[in-house]
Amino acid sequence: MEKKLHTVLTIRLFTDEKCFGPGIATLLHHIEDLHSLRSASMKMNMAYSKAWTIVRNAEAQLGFKLLHSTTGGRHGGGATLTEEARELLTAYDGFCRELQETADALYEKYFSKY
Amino acid sequence: MEKKLHTVLTIRLFTDEKCFGPGIATLLHHIEDLHSLRSASMKMNMAYSKAWTIVRNAEAQLGFKLLHSTTGGRHGGGATLTEEARELLTAYDGFCRELQETADALYEKYFSKY
Repeated sequence: MEKKLHTVLTIRLFTDEKCFGPGIATLLHHIEDLHSLRSASMKMNMAYSKAWTIVRNAEAQLGFKLLHSTTGGRHGGGATLTEEARELLTAYDGFCRELQETADALYEKYFSKY
Repeated sequence: MEKKLHTVLTIRLFTDEKCFGPGIATLLHHIEDLHSLRSASMKMNMAYSKAWTIVRNAEAQLGFKLLHSTTGGRHGGGATLTEEARELLTAYDGFCRELQETADALYEKYFSKY
């Protein structure tokens, strides 16, 4: 059986360093749904401490906050996206979607023989 | 000083598994220049065994040979690209270049405020 060749794009944003990509985008979407960084990290099988570090590093690079944290309680409080995070996520998703459409169209031009 | 946000695309080819991406593309370009897998891997600070594995895995996934190996001698013989490798590399480079142009154009649409 033929295994069809296909392309996969990975789109990352950098300032000096990598600051935003598919991982944190997925994490932020889960936080939007679950209102909790802890629940979002569990959903991704990611250590809470790693999720926290990813968010903090991205915030430092970007120069704005991504999360509003609500305090304490025994479940470690909740988290919601800031307006800036929502805007960046929308921009990132739109950019990825539109670039993927271009990639699909270009695929035939370059790889039709595979 | 402002650090400007920019995007970085990583473009990989998959069949079932990843089989081709920026790493092997660079390796093949070096082989084209240096006529040796060993010299090409050294140029990338990559272990020869790792370079060899990357090439063999890609060949298995793609279903065709990427390298002609010339035999032996105390420097381990030479390597040149097969016609199929040259074609794939040309297709990959063209695809990446054209998609990068689209990404540059789309960047302003989505990220001009950053």
